[in-house]
Order: sequence, then structure tokens, then C-alpha cells
Amino acid sequence: MERDRRRVSEAVIRRLPKYYRYLMELKKNGVQRVSSSELGQKMGLTASQIRQDFNCFGGFGQQGYGYNVAELCEEFKKILGLDRQYNMIVVGAGNLGQALANYSGFEKEGFFIKAMFDVNPRLIGMSIRGIEIYDVDNLRSYVASQHIDIGVICTPKEKAQEVAELLVSCGIKYIWNFAPIDVVLPDDVIVENVHLSDSLYILCYRINAKS
Amino acid sequence: MERDRRRVSEAVIRRLPKYYRYLMELKKNGVQRVSSSELGQKMGLTASQIRQDFNCFGGFGQQGYGYNVAELCEEFKKILGLDRQYNMIVVGAGNLGQALANYSGFEKEGFFIKAMFDVNPRLIGMSIRGIEIYDVDNLRSYVASQHIDIGVICTPKEKAQEVAELLVSCGIKYIWNFAPIDVVLPDDVIVENVHLSDSLYILCYRINAKS
Repeated sequence: MERDRRRVSEAVIRRLPKYYRYLMELKKNGVQRVSSSELGQKMGLTASQIRQDFNCFGGFGQQGYGYNVAELCEEFKKILGLDRQYNMIVVGAGNLGQALANYSGFEKEGFFIKAMFDVNPRLIGMSIRGIEIYDVDNLRSYVASQHIDIGVICTPKEKAQEVAELLVSCGIKYIWNFAPIDVVLPDDVIVENVHLSDSLYILCYRINAKS
Repeated sequence: MERDRRRVSEAVIRRLPKYYRYLMELKKNGVQRVSSSELGQKMGLTASQIRQDFNCFGGFGQQGYGYNVAELCEEFKKILGLDRQYNMIVVGAGNLGQALANYSGFEKEGFFIKAMFDVNPRLIGMSIRGIEIYDVDNLRSYVASQHIDIGVICTPKEKAQEVAELLVSCGIKYIWNFAPIDVVLPDDVIVENVHLSDSLYILCYRINAKS
């Protein structure tokens, strides 16, 4: 079935990683089939919501009989694009950048940090789990000679826009941004943000809305 | 005006930190008044969307004449609960936990990491920017003697549910969870997740949906 991904709503897209996580967990636990109601119960969704979401991608087999977990895992892997390797560079080798470099979990999913860049002379020349930290002045020539898919921004917010523009000018079209600012870039560049403080503010909002 | 926060939709709640960020930036730049259309242009929202969102909280003054930026900042501070201090403990003093402890930005907003906890003997006894790392066995007595608002989970996913239950059993009702798993807790506990891999998967989805 032809999938028109442009029609998939933002809410469904935001649920995709969660489906993938839960299905991989079921697979790991040796579960072979799962019904939409069983999956819904685990995920805090209704069975009909799940069937509706799955229908955006062709449906994945019969109701009643349940879904084949292993097949569904493969489908979600393909939908999410996790069936290939992604090369990343990290700009900003401070606390957060180093934490990302130290985390080996991304590699298991096919995401490889190939290099890090910073302006701090004390960091340049260091390496973390074999990932070298280079002078940001070398970023352009590095990217020109390597195949890099994703640029990760871990700089302070004051530098994030400039770094984003540098990455884009080097031909990088996909940005994973951790700086607490919304970078403004051409429409064909895809930016995904992790705004830690936004998340903390939302927690606070809920604390205060409750009390 | 009485605000019924229970009626505020999830989408509006998710936009609140963004409003706060943009308004604080305007204030920092000395801007005194802003119209809903000016703010909308900056934030990528329509003026009517902004007025609708603001109406959930009483509206904040006239259209046409524009909003008073400083007043609006104060209003959002109150709505988000950023007009008070929050004490946090971090469980899991690995890469991510240490990165959070090293980041001083949260303190400026009133969030203080008072202590960290781990099971690793090589980490226990260390301190990061004055924040001590204790044995997780001491967590219960520590929390009993201190006023702690928020428990931050930075453990591997296999330990996250257990740690979440420990925190809740110590009386902590607010959890900021970085482990890549949805912890299951009583309904009166508020959990806010930062799922880094989910964010990366969504970036991948968009990369592949585009190509």
C-alpha cells in the first residue's frame, strides 16, 4: 500500500517512537502476537486509537487475530528510518555534548557520532570514547570530506543560531538541537529540538496547576 | 479572573514554555510592548492562535494596543510556577546526571539540584559543582530530612521503574524522567519525560518521510 506520509498528523508522528519502544520490549520478552487492546492497555491508549494510527501506515494485518510483534517491529523500524546508519557530528563539547558522546546507546540504534567540535582550546584535541574533539574552524573541511547526516547542536543558546547556519552552509540538512532556542533555518532543513528547560517548565506548570 | 487550569489543553500547555522564552528574550532586548501578530510572526503562530491561548489564562490586556512585555513575563512566570524555588535530587550520576549537575542554567530559574545518588562505588563520595553523590541506600533518609520537590531519574532504563517507585515511596510526587521508558506510577504522581531517543527517532522519521 502506498503511504502518503504528508497526511500523517503531528500527534501520530509523536507517538511513533513510543510504539517502537513498546513493540521492541514485547519482542525482547518473547511475545509473538499482540492485539490492539493489549497494546493499548500497556501504552495508555485505546484500541481504536491504535488501529487508527496504524491505518496511517497501511494497517499491519488483521484485528482479532492480533498483530505479529516481530513483523510490526520491522515495519516501525522502516517507518522511522531505523533500518540504516546515520552519521552525526556534535557541535559544543561541553557537559551535554560529552554526555551524548559517552552514551553508547545511540550506536546500537545506528546513530554514530563521528566527531565533535568546540571553540575551547582546553577541549580541542581531547577524545571521548574515541570520538575526537576538533576546532570548530575545521568543521567545514571535515564535513566536506565525510558523509554526515545530522548536526547536533550542544552549544550555549547565544551560539546556536550561528552554528546552525554554519552546519546548513556545509550542506547538513538535519539538525538535532539541544540549545534552549528555536533556530531559524531554510524550510528544507529539518530541525528536531530537545528543550530541557521547556520540559522542566511543563513539569512545574503541572505541579502548580495541581496544587 | 478565576482560571480553570484543568480546561487548558495539552497543546496549549506544551506552548507555554515557548511563550515564556520568547517573551523573556523580548524583555531582555528592551522591547516594552508586543502585539499578538508581532509575537506570532516570531514564534511561527497566528495572532488569533496566540489570543486564543492567552484567553485560557484571562487574556492579559488589550489587543491593538499590544501586550506589556514585562507584565506578560511576570504572568507567565506565575502560570509556569517559576516564581518559587524547587529542590531536586538526581538518581543516576552517570554521563547525563553529571551533565545536569554541571549545568548552572537551571539554578538561575530557581531549580536546585541538592544531591545525587548512585549505586556505583566509584561515583559515591564524589561531588560535582558542590553537589555530593551519595549511595542510593541513603536516599530515603536524605529525603526524610530535606525538602525535595522533584526527583530526576537518570538511570539506565532497567532501573528506572524501581527508582521511580523508591522516590514515590519517599513522598516525592514529581518526577523528571530521562530514562528511555515510561514509568508506571500512581495517578497523583506527575511525570515529565525527556526521551532523547524518541526525539532522535522523530528526526529520522522526518528525514525519511521527506526523501
